[in-house]
Amino acid sequence: MPELRKDPIVGRWVIISTDRAKRPTDFLRNKVVQKGGFCPLCPGNEQKTPSEVLAYRPDVAGGGQKNGPGWTVRVVPNKFPALTIEGTLNRQAEGMFDKMNGLGAHELIIESPEHFSHMAVLPGRQIENVLWACRDRMVDLKQDRRFKYIMIFKNHGEAAGATLEHPHTQLIALPIVPKHVSEELEGAKQYFNIKERCIFCDILRQEMENPVRVVAENEDFLIFAPFAPRFPFETWIFPKRHESAFENLSSHQMINLAAALKQLLLKCDVALDGPAYNLALHTGPLQEGSLDYYHWHLEFIPRLTNTAGFEWGTGFYINPTPPEESAKFLRESEMPAGK
Amino acid sequence: MPELRKDPIVGRWVIISTDRAKRPTDFLRNKVVQKGGFCPLCPGNEQKTPSEVLAYRPDVAGGGQKNGPGWTVRVVPNKFPALTIEGTLNRQAEGMFDKMNGLGAHELIIESPEHFSHMAVLPGRQIENVLWACRDRMVDLKQDRRFKYIMIFKNHGEAAGATLEHPHTQLIALPIVPKHVSEELEGAKQYFNIKERCIFCDILRQEMENPVRVVAENEDFLIFAPFAPRFPFETWIFPKRHESAFENLSSHQMINLAAALKQLLLKCDVALDGPAYNLALHTGPLQEGSLDYYHWHLEFIPRLTNTAGFEWGTGFYINPTPPEESAKFLRESEMPAGK
Repeated sequence: MPELRKDPIVGRWVIISTDRAKRPTDFLRNKVVQKGGFCPLCPGNEQKTPSEVLAYRPDVAGGGQKNGPGWTVRVVPNKFPALTIEGTLNRQAEGMFDKMNGLGAHELIIESPEHFSHMAVLPGRQIENVLWACRDRMVDLKQDRRFKYIMIFKNHGEAAGATLEHPHTQLIALPIVPKHVSEELEGAKQYFNIKERCIFCDILRQEMENPVRVVAENEDFLIFAPFAPRFPFETWIFPKRHESAFENLSSHQMINLAAALKQLLLKCDVALDGPAYNLALHTGPLQEGSLDYYHWHLEFIPRLTNTAGFEWGTGFYINPTPPEESAKFLRESEMPAGK
Repeated sequence: MPELRKDPIVGRWVIISTDRAKRPTDFLRNKVVQKGGFCPLCPGNEQKTPSEVLAYRPDVAGGGQKNGPGWTVRVVPNKFPALTIEGTLNRQAEGMFDKMNGLGAHELIIESPEHFSHMAVLPGRQIENVLWACRDRMVDLKQDRRFKYIMIFKNHGEAAGATLEHPHTQLIALPIVPKHVSEELEGAKQYFNIKERCIFCDILRQEMENPVRVVAENEDFLIFAPFAPRFPFETWIFPKRHESAFENLSSHQMINLAAALKQLLLKCDVALDGPAYNLALHTGPLQEGSLDYYHWHLEFIPRLTNTAGFEWGTGFYINPTPPEESAKFLRESEMPAGK
């Protein structure tokens, strides 16, 4: 019999089809393939992007000059930004409606000079560099008091919305807190008001006690399938220590976060044949300081179904793979040697 | 400069890209094409579906027998239902989590005996029949006190999630109120608590006073693009008279709702070249009676972009077409003669 399960943070019910549970081989295999061709993010084409806002260049002779080659990670404003950095918010009413200028930053974090690469196969140290670049940009943009929230996310593969195939992560700084974040914040706050405990910490404890949904873990992070996932093989990465702001990560945690990310992505590449995916950082609002009730984390969603008509039309989710099964598949999928 | 706009009902901010606004011809043209082949929903194949729960058969000789041909609209349980109708809810805890049996009904409303058809080109009277069938099923299922909500929606075209090409609408009865509905209800209730007016009625009034976002209207319904649409060409149909429950529609309204739906779908077929789309009914919870603060309506979303990676990853929407422009395109798109 199918099950209705409730996400404890935001209160969303989802249908988990237990009867005809889909296994990895039941999904479309849309392996992400990089075609190559001219790429504005490749070394040598630095002039084709807006001027870099950050780059890591090895501290050796020939490490390169600003907007030249020699970088390991490079951050540039999006050439076609969804938001503009210049101006004031100019909050206005239009009758009963509210609007403001689309002020914000939209940046690309180029993860490697190698075009034909992908986060799963980058060396751990390079993934760390990418994570440090995200953090550095957050800390810098946080100085701009117009911004209330920074979204960091990654679309891998065309099916996941990527328009450039060179490995990159995106950053969007916003003058508002997006709805899906406010919902998490509000749900977590309500729980804290009653229990005086962080709901994410409670979830961590329960998942670790009975690890049926655990994919893997290391000293600092737990990788697991949530109890009420919207999508098949949806997987979350929680830091084990309570902290609401991603930017407060220690360097020890950074090493282990890079390792956890790499482990999850490699396992998915093996189990699901290199799928397109979306990865998103959920962190606290910029200007609120440390929160007792919120816990930053990563959400990973592979794109395994061609269509998402049902959810689009109804706002309601039917997930054909129970998280206990998706976790088992990923737990048991071996990483290829040498990766 | 792009604009950030807030949906007044649920409080969701969206980015409206005003600078490089996309026109209908800028979108992928994925015209829905029906291929034919064996179809379990076609007349003559009635035995291939579960036994019908409702059918309209013309009251003439040869009008047909139950589960035989001769029907104009036929409602059958989904052969592969997401939920099961038999059993009890059996609400349970799993540690801190909540779950219950996936109890519910999942039915298909077959809109016409004609396979190669589509709601936009059905005669108005036939669309009315489909709407009456939806209402009849709602009224019947409402008797079952286990159900709290009925979702009625339509996926047209493979890109919108349709797996059967024979024109049909879906109905899902649920023992819970879905999150996107609770959000609307809560937002509308908050507004009512402050203003003592229905927020949907206020929106109607404002949109009619300055009809920049109006696509069309008739005596009973307004077709318009919402102020803060998530998707390009997202369009809503509001009844002009306040009513929270779709099933309380008058027969006069039913005629005009069929006309409004047909008009919107035909205009989209012309302007957007027969796109795949999702259509969803938003109505009040089943067991709550009439609500002062809620207003049933239809939401229409054509599928114009191949990928929705950004929203999936971030839960945040960037819409490349301002609603004032999408409304203008649809307003000015002429319906072909004779349709």
